[in-house]
Amino acid sequence: MKNWIYKQCNNDDIVLSSMISLSRNLKEVPFSNKLTTIEARKNVELIYDIFKNEIIDEEIHLHQLWNEDKEISNSYVDKHLISKELIKNRDKTAFILNKEETISIMINEEDHLRLQCISAGLDLDEVFRSITKLDDKIERNAHYAFDENLGYLTTCPTDIGTGMRASVNMHLPALTFSDEIANFAKGLTQIGMTMRGIYEEGTKSYGNIYKISNQVTLGLTEEEIIGNLKGVVLNVISEEKKFREVLLSKCKYEIEDKIYRAYGTLKSAVLLGAKESIDLLSSVRLGVELSLLDIEKTKLNELLIITRDSSLQNYLGRKLSSKELNYERAKIIKIILKET
Amino acid sequence: MKNWIYKQCNNDDIVLSSMISLSRNLKEVPFSNKLTTIEARKNVELIYDIFKNEIIDEEIHLHQLWNEDKEISNSYVDKHLISKELIKNRDKTAFILNKEETISIMINEEDHLRLQCISAGLDLDEVFRSITKLDDKIERNAHYAFDENLGYLTTCPTDIGTGMRASVNMHLPALTFSDEIANFAKGLTQIGMTMRGIYEEGTKSYGNIYKISNQVTLGLTEEEIIGNLKGVVLNVISEEKKFREVLLSKCKYEIEDKIYRAYGTLKSAVLLGAKESIDLLSSVRLGVELSLLDIEKTKLNELLIITRDSSLQNYLGRKLSSKELNYERAKIIKIILKET
Repeated sequence: MKNWIYKQCNNDDIVLSSMISLSRNLKEVPFSNKLTTIEARKNVELIYDIFKNEIIDEEIHLHQLWNEDKEISNSYVDKHLISKELIKNRDKTAFILNKEETISIMINEEDHLRLQCISAGLDLDEVFRSITKLDDKIERNAHYAFDENLGYLTTCPTDIGTGMRASVNMHLPALTFSDEIANFAKGLTQIGMTMRGIYEEGTKSYGNIYKISNQVTLGLTEEEIIGNLKGVVLNVISEEKKFREVLLSKCKYEIEDKIYRAYGTLKSAVLLGAKESIDLLSSVRLGVELSLLDIEKTKLNELLIITRDSSLQNYLGRKLSSKELNYERAKIIKIILKET
Repeated sequence: MKNWIYKQCNNDDIVLSSMISLSRNLKEVPFSNKLTTIEARKNVELIYDIFKNEIIDEEIHLHQLWNEDKEISNSYVDKHLISKELIKNRDKTAFILNKEETISIMINEEDHLRLQCISAGLDLDEVFRSITKLDDKIERNAHYAFDENLGYLTTCPTDIGTGMRASVNMHLPALTFSDEIANFAKGLTQIGMTMRGIYEEGTKSYGNIYKISNQVTLGLTEEEIIGNLKGVVLNVISEEKKFREVLLSKCKYEIEDKIYRAYGTLKSAVLLGAKESIDLLSSVRLGVELSLLDIEKTKLNELLIITRDSSLQNYLGRKLSSKELNYERAKIIKIILKET
């Protein structure tokens, strides 16, 4: 697997990252929500001990959230390595991360273990291989809560069965401009999948990046879930490309205008809000994908992360006011774009 | 006098140009609106003959509007060298222009002659000296319609007396941002002056450039009119500078953001509307006046002219659709800014 932020993919790639997570619980320990703080922290120890048995062939690091600054933890959310939910119960939760930041194991989130593998681009097969290998290794060292009929037992009934969520983050500006996104989302719901903007506030979505994932975990094999998702993603890619061509043939100058203005603004602004930055970065990303701009996608990924409030504060090592955030965000964007 | 577009002034100068015009009629010829086309064209000949007597110590050129392409004539309006009214009666009107484009004599506009001198920056005294010299020379070669009690006789009663309009074009972004412009305009009306945006559409004004001029031509000497105007202009300059300091102390980053974004957009956009360009050029001009940007003001003046629809079409030598105009405008702005 490849770190999705810093490892170069194809520049015309519409898919940012592929991710699979598995929800697992230990047989002998009550579900996370039944654990006291002391018991939960003991459970973290117990699980971390399992991982010392060379389960991951790489340097790993345990993050005990109760011992870690909140901004640091949040910056891992920005990188899509842990969930917001994990941070909500900071005094009980932890996560294990490999050095390459492709594997993360959340501990005491909704379930005892949430194994997660993430890789750059459309790479579901490799991610599936990695997470299966990881899951098998753990199973050899621990007793999972498992039922012959139901499959893996989870705190929330909607996760029962495979306990698997597979998802792909995609950049879909043309489907968004053409107002086709809502139709796609509706269609996906009908086949047990879901699509949502990854930068949402209220009902508004920013940056044209969407996560498509399976909603159903029960009654299908893991391979079927992956196969269905891959089929849907390939279809969305081809639709997005079709709509890009339509847009370019109908309003080439308007699209180019949007792209070059966005790049100009990112390189010039003195103050930049989080939402505006993400929208501008989407236009620049489209410019790269259409070969109008020559910027490494890794720079754009980096900017997508570093310009989030929490990552920015973590990077600068201090809490910032809203105006300071906008000032520092504009500054760092200019610096990183100048390097290209 | 200095050509107001191409001759360098101080970069911190808030005044773009100073202009004085004198309305004059020939004693023997009926007022312009009484002339048939043939008589009007004869009047043009008559007046041009007077100018052959070395009235202007410089190469001069006669533009007969009925012989000239409309876009070419309009581009002189963009340069503030002739009035829109002159073009309305194209089959009867003409103008004489010196090579430096500081003196223009409109023929058969509202009056037989409208002598106009224009110079860069705040230069009312020099402009007044030049126009007086010009007026005296003409008077030695022609009989003006003049009444001992009323002064110079004009078609419109509001011009009677001195027949003089003195005006100054000023860049007032800070007074505009602070909504002080309306108060200033109201105050000026009470002392016989007027202020209006030079780029107006409906009630909206663009580009923060305003013309302040005298409204009263009767009952004051020419020197008094100039003196009053100069007093007002110096006061407006000091108020604008005061408000700029207030803005910079209260919202330095916001002002810088506006300026640098404007510059970035002008250098990047693929399509630019006329109004948007003028607003962006105003922000860039403010940047130059605040020493944030290092661009020659002459470039900004040039852009202010060339990006007007008519000048752009005249420059390219063909009629353009609205979208083509926006495309070509963006293109020429990028080229001229790249030269700096």
